Amino acid sequence: MASNKSLLILPGDGIGPEAMGEVRRIVNWMEDNRAVSFDVDEDLVGGSSIDKHGIPVTDEVVEKAQNVDAVLLGAVGGPKWDNLDFSIKPERGLLRLRKDLELFANLRPAVCFDALVDASSLKPELVSGLDIMIVRELTGGVYFGEPRGIEDLGNGVRRGVNTQVYTTPEIQRVARVAFELAKKRNNRVCSSEKANVMESGVLWREEVTKIGETEFPEVELSHMYADAAAMELVRKPKQFDVIVTDNLFGDILSDCAAMLTGSLGMLPSASLGDVDETGRRKALYEPVHGSAPDIAGQNIANPIATILSYGMALRYSFDMGEEADLVETAVQKVLASGIRTGDIMSAGMTQVSTTEMGDAIIRELDKANG
Amino acid sequence: MASNKSLLILPGDGIGPEAMGEVRRIVNWMEDNRAVSFDVDEDLVGGSSIDKHGIPVTDEVVEKAQNVDAVLLGAVGGPKWDNLDFSIKPERGLLRLRKDLELFANLRPAVCFDALVDASSLKPELVSGLDIMIVRELTGGVYFGEPRGIEDLGNGVRRGVNTQVYTTPEIQRVARVAFELAKKRNNRVCSSEKANVMESGVLWREEVTKIGETEFPEVELSHMYADAAAMELVRKPKQFDVIVTDNLFGDILSDCAAMLTGSLGMLPSASLGDVDETGRRKALYEPVHGSAPDIAGQNIANPIATILSYGMALRYSFDMGEEADLVETAVQKVLASGIRTGDIMSAGMTQVSTTEMGDAIIRELDKANG
Ligand SMILES: [Mg+2]
Ligand SMILES: [Mg+2]
Repeated sequence: MASNKSLLILPGDGIGPEAMGEVRRIVNWMEDNRAVSFDVDEDLVGGSSIDKHGIPVTDEVVEKAQNVDAVLLGAVGGPKWDNLDFSIKPERGLLRLRKDLELFANLRPAVCFDALVDASSLKPELVSGLDIMIVRELTGGVYFGEPRGIEDLGNGVRRGVNTQVYTTPEIQRVARVAFELAKKRNNRVCSSEKANVMESGVLWREEVTKIGETEFPEVELSHMYADAAAMELVRKPKQFDVIVTDNLFGDILSDCAAMLTGSLGMLPSASLGDVDETGRRKALYEPVHGSAPDIAGQNIANPIATILSYGMALRYSFDMGEEADLVETAVQKVLASGIRTGDIMSAGMTQVSTTEMGDAIIRELDKANG
Repeated sequence: MASNKSLLILPGDGIGPEAMGEVRRIVNWMEDNRAVSFDVDEDLVGGSSIDKHGIPVTDEVVEKAQNVDAVLLGAVGGPKWDNLDFSIKPERGLLRLRKDLELFANLRPAVCFDALVDASSLKPELVSGLDIMIVRELTGGVYFGEPRGIEDLGNGVRRGVNTQVYTTPEIQRVARVAFELAKKRNNRVCSSEKANVMESGVLWREEVTKIGETEFPEVELSHMYADAAAMELVRKPKQFDVIVTDNLFGDILSDCAAMLTGSLGMLPSASLGDVDETGRRKALYEPVHGSAPDIAGQNIANPIATILSYGMALRYSFDMGEEADLVETAVQKVLASGIRTGDIMSAGMTQVSTTEMGDAIIRELDKANG
């Protein structure tokens, strides 16, 4: 069959390459078992790019990332590169990719795995079956707005300034992503800001409302102040379907929601850009967890968040929802069978290595594929 | 004995007057049973002031508030005044008091009452004994910074702007409040910002560090990004003693922490200003809950948050720590005995009215006073 699905794999640093090794086995499984073929390219990002090229990402890799259907990234960073100048640190590679690809919508699922419900700090009945999608605006707002900086006012007094700024097109495009997602989920979007005290929040609410009314009248839209949203996430998280919010509030609410699940180390993410003339949406997928340099190279890391990131790529970049379901179900089944890597190990379970976790997931894929 | 303790009581609207009625009984108890006397004045704020004077707070009341040791406020607002212009709504009375008294430090205790531990959405062992003090900067930051507003850029495009701005004196004074509090608690301050992506956060971190090193070397200071703080509050809240943070992050983190306790309707707050020449610190105390107009006037409201706000006034404005302890212990004992107002009622407990809750607390005060 024709190969038309291009995937750029950037394993990065720390446990990134090991976790990505298990993803490659699942990519191979897809090619062997489903009517599909991927053009897979692999390259460097982060510390591994610094070691070879002196910079955390090369123009060539950025160019490649611009021209594939999806980028899958492992993790970047580690103590080896901690003392480098801020401008060439491993993390800058990731930031440059996000910026150059204009990945403005960060999708952060907060899903509670049935088998891991006891790992949550919340009572089991509040998180069992939890499945929230937080859509965080990623390229605007107070982390990027100008003017910014620290100014000397004389007499030892200084002033620190950042600017929260959003234009209507910035709000509209991320709102559209949230509404589209809701249509494939439970048809509900909750938009969060502080319109009671911030004009940027007033504008946010007006624009999201407009997009909802004119383009997605079938999706139920509600609004919640960001402080109330933090409270409601803690009180009754299952009330939410899709939450759309700005860069700053999304930073806090997505992490808060992820922690509620008790499975922080298991969660994937996606960062999406605009749809181009060919109908392709720029996209980068990566686990929420970091590079865990302390356990790198020991074949003990948990590859599930990276595998689920590939699952998100299947769903959102390759329109392969059925295959994405296969991957997610296989992970659920492996966990239900008591198989655990060290990070999620608990009494009575079976501890396995990174590659053994990959084996177990592939066994479940085989079973499901009959 | 000489009366030198002045207290301005502003019952406000909704359940405010009922709750404040129980506070007045406890003020009387203090005068009858402890070597103390209060000059108590009472006046109007919010809707009740609008009904009489046409504005939510008069200059005369603001003047009074400037000249007492402590202001104790019930609650403001209700549907009766919902359609008034923004500038004369009940809430503006409270905002004007905060502004004119320059109440820059908002103290939000997150305390879990032993008897109510099951009301938390978190597992009991994570919140039992929880006692955090969040100090939120209240008069600066992005809710007040200029420039602000919504601008028309033409072609149907608009831009919303708010400005996050802090000067070093603003950071220093709220940091001092936090360190002073920590000295009377467990000697630990955690400062929270986003110094990794915001210059205003860099300045915040530098100034808090400087105040800690030069003025409070005996207090242990740590720093945590605001998104990580939201996660850690959910994961393991008892790790914190005092948290100091800016207006925006404090808005979210204080509500998140309050919700963790499961006793949101039971929590008091304090807003403190600067110390004047006479050594007096301007201060306003109020429950976190609102005016609950739907249950007003029925003698069923829970007066505990207002009573505990008076307890905070005893501790922070009147230097009566022993009497504050008496009040807090009495509340704990009443709850432990199974007495509940309707809002916190559960199976097997005894439901009482507002005044009966006041009776029960005074009975415990009598017992403790021997
Ligand atoms: Mg974050
Ligand atoms: Mg709030």
